Amino acid sequence: MSDTSTFVLNGSWLSGPTYKVGLMLSLCGVSFGYRAIDLRAGEQRTPEYRAKTPFSQVPVLEHGGRTFAQSAAILQYLAETLGRFQGADAAERAEIAAWMFWDFDRLAPGIYRSRTIRLGIFPADDSVRDHYASVGTAALTLLQTRLDGREWLVGTRPTIADIDVYGVVAYAGEAGFDLAAYPAITAWKARVEALPGWATSADVLPKQSRP
Amino acid sequence: MSDTSTFVLNGSWLSGPTYKVGLMLSLCGVSFGYRAIDLRAGEQRTPEYRAKTPFSQVPVLEHGGRTFAQSAAILQYLAETLGRFQGADAAERAEIAAWMFWDFDRLAPGIYRSRTIRLGIFPADDSVRDHYASVGTAALTLLQTRLDGREWLVGTRPTIADIDVYGVVAYAGEAGFDLAAYPAITAWKARVEALPGWATSADVLPKQSRP
Repeated sequence: MSDTSTFVLNGSWLSGPTYKVGLMLSLCGVSFGYRAIDLRAGEQRTPEYRAKTPFSQVPVLEHGGRTFAQSAAILQYLAETLGRFQGADAAERAEIAAWMFWDFDRLAPGIYRSRTIRLGIFPADDSVRDHYASVGTAALTLLQTRLDGREWLVGTRPTIADIDVYGVVAYAGEAGFDLAAYPAITAWKARVEALPGWATSADVLPKQSRP
Repeated sequence: MSDTSTFVLNGSWLSGPTYKVGLMLSLCGVSFGYRAIDLRAGEQRTPEYRAKTPFSQVPVLEHGGRTFAQSAAILQYLAETLGRFQGADAAERAEIAAWMFWDFDRLAPGIYRSRTIRLGIFPADDSVRDHYASVGTAALTLLQTRLDGREWLVGTRPTIADIDVYGVVAYAGEAGFDLAAYPAITAWKARVEALPGWATSADVLPKQSRP
């Protein structure tokens, strides 16, 4: 029997997408259970975990007896269910979603993949490493242009577009990008970090032993 | 003055994401205007086009005096606005969205990028080419597993998850993948192509002179 009022986040401290979801719940003032999935031990490929998601990835959020996968889809679900950080109408929701799909297409590959290459998690030669560095630089340049003169990605208040993109930008340093070159991103990042309920990844993802 | 009842699709015959949106409109029985954007001539970077989207990409859909970018976000907007191919509740909508975000993260890079490398649009050495071929093979393998024994990606009827993923899979051959190795994908692809209103990319994207 599952309690429909509770949230359980399956994830990993290594995972930027897990942080995104934990941060959203924290910003919404929602407490949640946390189940650590050991990616290096391959726990995301066990039959028990695969019964929760077809993707063998983290995070997976459990709520109301259902399971939810893909961080940005989870943010959309939480925005709709909790009525927070969402667009006012279909057109604004589409504008918010556009930034999230752009993230998955351009920003996350550049930053998350560059980070896993640097951490030695994803094996890549110099050519592939340089390719992702270039993808990341192009995406950060576009983001800098967007945020220059704006407080938030869409409209005049923070939305799940900001939370989603922040959850990637937060790892730019570990991925080898220097945000000092992007002053509008740096200023926007500080605005996100000043929101009530903001928390670091170490705050929302219980510490596990680091290898 | 814009007519709020009309749809105008800005796109390119080269572009799989443009096809996705044209196909959705066709499946919904909605007629639309089409404005060809010449990507090779850099029309996506003109000030006029950049006023429509921050992304300098195709497609952009104009509707109701607003502009919409990122193909999957446009599909979500059309599903909500037209009441077609959408989920029954927030949980099903999230499951549908999960496949679309997975697509942007894993499937589209493997197939669209492999295709642009083969077409000579995106310059890449053998290492980067092989990397994207491997990303595409992993994504198609996951999709084959999902569709084995299922008619549609989510639930028991076609949704925007199918339309979105189909709009990538349709280019697998041009990208160098042989779908004969994926019988469940091949059978599902035939089911999409049997839907009323289905049309080829040449049908929905007016022909332009090929280089």
